[in-house]
Amino acid sequence: MCIFCKIVQGEVPSRKVYESEQVVAFHDITPQAPVHIIIIPKKHIVTMNEVETGTDDAVIAELFAAARKIAQELGIAESGYRLVNNCNEDSGMEVSHLHFHLLGGRKLGSIVSNTVS
Amino acid sequence: MCIFCKIVQGEVPSRKVYESEQVVAFHDITPQAPVHIIIIPKKHIVTMNEVETGTDDAVIAELFAAARKIAQELGIAESGYRLVNNCNEDSGMEVSHLHFHLLGGRKLGSIVSNTVS
Repeated sequence: MCIFCKIVQGEVPSRKVYESEQVVAFHDITPQAPVHIIIIPKKHIVTMNEVETGTDDAVIAELFAAARKIAQELGIAESGYRLVNNCNEDSGMEVSHLHFHLLGGRKLGSIVSNTVS
Repeated sequence: MCIFCKIVQGEVPSRKVYESEQVVAFHDITPQAPVHIIIIPKKHIVTMNEVETGTDDAVIAELFAAARKIAQELGIAESGYRLVNNCNEDSGMEVSHLHFHLLGGRKLGSIVSNTVS
């Protein structure tokens, strides 16, 4: 079972900020900004490539409803935030379970590294 | 009318890569990676904060269906890509019309600048 599925099951502890029928959100353990939340579907979807049009539309909508609600609750909705999904190796994706980063609380700078490697 | 609405209307030219009933996608004019596509709803939604749960669920799902399709077509689905939504000032959002950046074609590095400013 992947680490995020274990968090969903409660087998691995996390600092949860949100939970609904299909979605869980928790603080990233290595935050890159004052607010850095990971938002995931409870269902084990590997990457964005495996999201199925139709079948998974509701869970995608719920992920974004969660992001809006959390941004409000953590006080970054007006100051600003970034939502990021990484898919596969070039992106730096680290856990093979679909997840969105919600980042805020400071000026976030560039959306990619400027170094071409 | 905002610049993205003008692109939707065809009043401002763009290099379109995708168009559906509710969504348009085109090449960013200042690309930050070999592939850098902007994906927008045709409807003028200002930011993620203004997305309405229920009403806008279908358009959100369609934005992500578009992202998956474009990533496949442009050959970055397997190598990897990043999807980014910026909201309000701290994020560096530049056009006040909801949009997602689809980036790929190289190692993308950090999801935020490491400099706290």
